[in-house]
Amino acid sequence: MSKLAGSLREAIAASGLRDGMCISFHHHLRSGDYVLNMVLDEIAAMGIRDLTVNASSIHDGHAPMIEHMKSGVVTGLETNYIGPAVGRAISEGVLKNPVIFRTHGSRPSDLEQGVSKIDVAFLAAPTADPMGNCTGKIGKSACGSLGYAFVDAQCAAKTVVITDNLVDYPLYDWSISEDFVDYVVQVDAIGDPRGIVSGTTRMPKDPIALRIAQTAARAIDASGLLKDGVSFQTGAGGASLATADFLKQIMLEKHIKGSYALGGITGYIVDMLNEGLFEAIQDVQCFDLKAVESLRTNPRHMEITASRYASPTAKSTAAGSLDVVVLGATQIDLDFNVNVHTDSKGYIIGGSGGHTDVAACAKLTVIVAPLSRARMPIVVDRVLTVSTPGSSVDMLVTQYGIAVNPARPELKEALQKAHLPVKDIGELKALADKINGAPKKREIKKDRIVAKVQNRDGSLLDVIYGV
Amino acid sequence: MSKLAGSLREAIAASGLRDGMCISFHHHLRSGDYVLNMVLDEIAAMGIRDLTVNASSIHDGHAPMIEHMKSGVVTGLETNYIGPAVGRAISEGVLKNPVIFRTHGSRPSDLEQGVSKIDVAFLAAPTADPMGNCTGKIGKSACGSLGYAFVDAQCAAKTVVITDNLVDYPLYDWSISEDFVDYVVQVDAIGDPRGIVSGTTRMPKDPIALRIAQTAARAIDASGLLKDGVSFQTGAGGASLATADFLKQIMLEKHIKGSYALGGITGYIVDMLNEGLFEAIQDVQCFDLKAVESLRTNPRHMEITASRYASPTAKSTAAGSLDVVVLGATQIDLDFNVNVHTDSKGYIIGGSGGHTDVAACAKLTVIVAPLSRARMPIVVDRVLTVSTPGSSVDMLVTQYGIAVNPARPELKEALQKAHLPVKDIGELKALADKINGAPKKREIKKDRIVAKVQNRDGSLLDVIYGV
Repeated sequence: MSKLAGSLREAIAASGLRDGMCISFHHHLRSGDYVLNMVLDEIAAMGIRDLTVNASSIHDGHAPMIEHMKSGVVTGLETNYIGPAVGRAISEGVLKNPVIFRTHGSRPSDLEQGVSKIDVAFLAAPTADPMGNCTGKIGKSACGSLGYAFVDAQCAAKTVVITDNLVDYPLYDWSISEDFVDYVVQVDAIGDPRGIVSGTTRMPKDPIALRIAQTAARAIDASGLLKDGVSFQTGAGGASLATADFLKQIMLEKHIKGSYALGGITGYIVDMLNEGLFEAIQDVQCFDLKAVESLRTNPRHMEITASRYASPTAKSTAAGSLDVVVLGATQIDLDFNVNVHTDSKGYIIGGSGGHTDVAACAKLTVIVAPLSRARMPIVVDRVLTVSTPGSSVDMLVTQYGIAVNPARPELKEALQKAHLPVKDIGELKALADKINGAPKKREIKKDRIVAKVQNRDGSLLDVIYGV
Repeated sequence: MSKLAGSLREAIAASGLRDGMCISFHHHLRSGDYVLNMVLDEIAAMGIRDLTVNASSIHDGHAPMIEHMKSGVVTGLETNYIGPAVGRAISEGVLKNPVIFRTHGSRPSDLEQGVSKIDVAFLAAPTADPMGNCTGKIGKSACGSLGYAFVDAQCAAKTVVITDNLVDYPLYDWSISEDFVDYVVQVDAIGDPRGIVSGTTRMPKDPIALRIAQTAARAIDASGLLKDGVSFQTGAGGASLATADFLKQIMLEKHIKGSYALGGITGYIVDMLNEGLFEAIQDVQCFDLKAVESLRTNPRHMEITASRYASPTAKSTAAGSLDVVVLGATQIDLDFNVNVHTDSKGYIIGGSGGHTDVAACAKLTVIVAPLSRARMPIVVDRVLTVSTPGSSVDMLVTQYGIAVNPARPELKEALQKAHLPVKDIGELKALADKINGAPKKREIKKDRIVAKVQNRDGSLLDVIYGV
């Protein structure tokens, strides 16, 4: 017995896919992913319509799906992140039904709890055997962790593995096991390696980002959490990455050995593991080749599922043990609500990903952001979209100072004691307005909801209107 | 946050366990397991009664549970195997409700499908961290694979991990992940290492076993399945082990490289992996220290879950790709039905384990057994208990010849062509009777059912009456 289908079309037909169903994808190949596009093209050619796509994230490489939205092949989208290319089209009204935005933690939770359902999951697999055992660790399209894809395989009624590196059964060191896979399809390429991962992680040279990062690192140190056993997550954005670098310097100086680093992982975090600054990495997504190599070879660099990463209904998560998380923002308001879904004009340009999850879980949630970008203030009266509620945010670090959430007076005191530039968030907003000019009051026509933003417990956090 | 309970009693109380519920255990510590006994003792002391125990297997080290059956603390038992000590007591009527016997494959299937439910799972864990990540690979009580325990953790309403080797969070190279664990309890010892695994695997010296094994290996060779890519499972019993040894000689002579070995794994199978006779081992249970060490250090020696091993509702299993399986029998009848549940007097002395599963799945199922044991014939008119239906059995190999299932005429022909001593199973039975004297007709009082034997699809295969 083999699960090998003769072609993608054969596998789709065998899966029983029909109009109105829900299909799913993972985003480990990021903007280099070919699989979502190739599956939608095939489905369109087969005349199947009115599908909902449930994808852990949508990247700019998925822009061809806009045509399938126009033609009615895709009428619904449930995801945790949408890059600007597809986001703009959706903001302009291309998709029939409003997007449902979840978080990296609530997506697996909703699937496991049966709140959302997948009829057919399509898994891009850098290596697979004919029975569907598969991994992202090896192969020409290696992406490292398949953390977000486990739940798709486990919960979908049918699971199709699509690979460009078919090996003999049994694949050892698999990530997703054959007991969850129905069909295997071999194709020439599942992605463009240049888009899947970046070759190396680069530290920012932008002096503003560096200044923010240095201040953030000093503030984290002042919080008292930077001690033996500390755990943290930083993003791959410039200021976050630079913050990790400054934290590293402090840890080296003070001989602090951390417990684990979490999240999307860069080579920079791998270096910290290898230099003994952490005991382990819990990796739900690799961002560069060094992270892929480390996940493959170092048992202390662990692949974890999205559920273990941050599911609000898991019995515990790696996020739940986090001390410090450093995150970005496209906007943050006077109540510390953070927007990572829309730009200043209201166009969809992102999504929570794990932002809302780890902010809710960590002992200390630090937002790093410049006061303005391209003359648009980041600190505003009220964010256009609430992605992460202000109650989850402990402080904002900008190049002009730090604002501490009033709910954390002891933190404010600790930073002041350390002679850090603590400001009221209102002061920072006023400063932003002074520098950039008061922002024009945006008129949002509230006639069409294009997306609903769910909090990690499934409640409605906000809605996004068409532009 | 930590899941560490101050004591076992504290964890039991926190779990909400109350009268009439179902608790579960795995059997990776085999007869050396302390956990089942310590949990039942504590539960009894807390005054909780009328529990069903769902355990993957019950070994003789669990004999203290007989007292808890007498006192009404335990009134039900669902399991895949019961060793003679507890088996005899159940056959004599100590347990209130009939045992439900499943197989190693149908147990996880029934749990995953919701056919059976666990309220509180107690997991003996050779190493765990305070959040419940755990493994059997390391620690003073290391048992290797935790294959049978995954489903308990995943499906139980509450999961309690009990360990004698607590390590810092996060344990790397874990087997069962924290997202499935509610409480962690630290104890002095979870088991007696001498009972958990044997130090080494010993080849039998019994000339009858060796003769059976050699004939079985020649028959497997003659079947045409012993070629590059062959996969097989052999048990740890003498004749099975010796069959593996003879197969190894043939593979070496003919330069055959197999695909994978499956099942409960011994050092002998590890040697075959290391000598390049297999590409991989799929291990649901380690039988000796060499297997534990190999599982810990060799990525080609893979820990698999019981579902992946043999669940009839998994999308595929390792058992499903098996070519050859070599199994034992306490009785086999003229229809090739095999009994591994009861002895010749009708006492419970075992159970299917994975016998029924792999026999149903493999291309070639070979039963190796002497014609008689202690003057009791093995080949009988009708087995006392049907454990594995004759339709799953392809041939019986004894020291006096091979009987081929009439449903496999092409196999019979192949063996005859190879000049192997093919007999009719009736001839073998007659020979057994001639040597041992015709067996006394056993009178079974059919007044009390002490166990129900389910086939892997949940249908009733047979019942076992009290003795």
